[in-house]
Amino acid sequence: MTMGALRIGILGAGTVGAQVIRILRADNLLATRAGIPLEITRVLVRDVCAPRSAEFSPELLTDCADDLFPENPEERPHIIVELMGGIEPAKTLISRALSQGISVVTANKALLATHGSELYALAEHHNAGLYCEAAVAGAIPIIRAIRESLAGDRVTKIQGIVNGTTNFILDSMSSKGLSYDVALAQAQELGYAEADPTADVEGFDAAAKCAILASLAFNAKVTLDDVTTQGISQVTAEDIAQAEAHDSVIKLIATAQLQGEGNETTISVNVQPEALPSTHPLASVRGAYNAIYVTCENAGEMMFYGAGAGGAPTASAVCGDIVQAARALHVHPHLPAQPSSRILPIV
Amino acid sequence: MTMGALRIGILGAGTVGAQVIRILRADNLLATRAGIPLEITRVLVRDVCAPRSAEFSPELLTDCADDLFPENPEERPHIIVELMGGIEPAKTLISRALSQGISVVTANKALLATHGSELYALAEHHNAGLYCEAAVAGAIPIIRAIRESLAGDRVTKIQGIVNGTTNFILDSMSSKGLSYDVALAQAQELGYAEADPTADVEGFDAAAKCAILASLAFNAKVTLDDVTTQGISQVTAEDIAQAEAHDSVIKLIATAQLQGEGNETTISVNVQPEALPSTHPLASVRGAYNAIYVTCENAGEMMFYGAGAGGAPTASAVCGDIVQAARALHVHPHLPAQPSSRILPIV
Repeated sequence: MTMGALRIGILGAGTVGAQVIRILRADNLLATRAGIPLEITRVLVRDVCAPRSAEFSPELLTDCADDLFPENPEERPHIIVELMGGIEPAKTLISRALSQGISVVTANKALLATHGSELYALAEHHNAGLYCEAAVAGAIPIIRAIRESLAGDRVTKIQGIVNGTTNFILDSMSSKGLSYDVALAQAQELGYAEADPTADVEGFDAAAKCAILASLAFNAKVTLDDVTTQGISQVTAEDIAQAEAHDSVIKLIATAQLQGEGNETTISVNVQPEALPSTHPLASVRGAYNAIYVTCENAGEMMFYGAGAGGAPTASAVCGDIVQAARALHVHPHLPAQPSSRILPIV
Repeated sequence: MTMGALRIGILGAGTVGAQVIRILRADNLLATRAGIPLEITRVLVRDVCAPRSAEFSPELLTDCADDLFPENPEERPHIIVELMGGIEPAKTLISRALSQGISVVTANKALLATHGSELYALAEHHNAGLYCEAAVAGAIPIIRAIRESLAGDRVTKIQGIVNGTTNFILDSMSSKGLSYDVALAQAQELGYAEADPTADVEGFDAAAKCAILASLAFNAKVTLDDVTTQGISQVTAEDIAQAEAHDSVIKLIATAQLQGEGNETTISVNVQPEALPSTHPLASVRGAYNAIYVTCENAGEMMFYGAGAGGAPTASAVCGDIVQAARALHVHPHLPAQPSSRILPIV
């Protein structure tokens, strides 16, 4: 155990986990930015004997969750990074970490969309950090924007293209004149859609992200079940053509908005295909990209656009959260400087 | 003096200052989010007798900078918000605050573009916060994205439309077929351009923002003088038409990018009119809007779009920084929760 290093335990070693470990080990960048050496102490996996890429040193692997929470506080991780996905055992392990005051970084949208309020409250109660930038729209920093940048403003409406698979399918139907079935088959061939595409095409994935965004923007207990959800499986080539005739584009839009005023204020959350005028900034979001359009009382309208999924973009968001968690634990929490070993010349 | 409140001193009472005070006083939202009451203790102005809007209680106003730094530490502000603009006396007052460990929120792009490195170092040395979200692209949270969200990644290139005036003029030339002179005159009539438009149309405003973005993204001492700058005053209607014939759009683009690899890495920074293919996300940025397109090693490409100027959007960014500074000083620095007094119903 390196003296004075910040200990990181990782739960789950899939695509994103491998990328996170690669980035943490690639060079000294993250440690420099965090202001402290970062050390991966344990990686929880289902099968320690499964074949793995070189990122995973065998001595780090364990299939026993207790190994992530050693009795000796000097061996306990400072940060737990949860990349298992699903509700259990992720929920139990995250709760265990937060209850011990260990900060948690997670990319788990399913969990946050169903038990987010409980976990945020647990984190607050134990004064532990709960970071979840990677849970919505991959590398796009929408969570930090809502929680921090816009903390001096009131978000009134969020409209998002938060599912790359459905945007890819709708974009193919529109740009290539394909039927839904052909566009879906192509998306599956290219790896943009799963063999069972239900969670994407019926809007459930977008609904989970919608619930998380609404919870954070409006400080409300919005769960997946609250989101009125309609997917794209009923969208026809004729619908697309008709929209085009009206200079519009059909997109699967997740909307979370405030309605009414004062004590009458309520929240509405829904996911459905919508025809947007082609001049709307969301209309030009192509392929599997994501974008989130936010309306605020003072800031007006803004949009965040980028890669919404994939191992490397998601790992980028996870690593950003790791650096923030480390800074909050160990260095000037209010000084987000990025010291580097060398000043680069300007040409 | 309210017991247990966080004291805020404000330097400058122009358009943005008035909006910041309005937002701080509008309701309890910011204090709730900061986790502590926020109290404006002093507002430094040039002329205490000048007519002002109702936001400014006369007893808060002073034309003596020393009043912002009382001897008694229990009366000293916790946060100084600098909205004067220009190099002096802003630089002296910000340095004085940071040297006393007082966190500073500033919207001063001219100052940061020329003396940023010095001020960031001073803040770090005294463990004080220096927040500057409002200095670049108004309400668009690009500074926090670079400093925090992307801290786990490597930014390799930033391309920005960071000056609303020039984008408005170029957009008018393109969409209405106007000459540069007519488009400029219209922008002046509508209040988008100053009577003396030099700083905008010759690219100096964009260059200042380019220097700030490059400094933070690459941790380099990039100043305004390093930026190779060409404005839009030589762009003709023919240039616009020729670009259109090639399915392109002319935009004033501020570019900061890494060049070369390893020990050969250098930075290039420039501002110039560029013809972008109409499919580029920056090509569809209309009117006086701003957008910043960021390329990262792992996150890939992303874009941030929104209102780049104006009292309310800029004040939104300033108030976001005030809440962050307050959280860092007084509450769980690593728990960016947004508690609210009331859970809203979902319809």
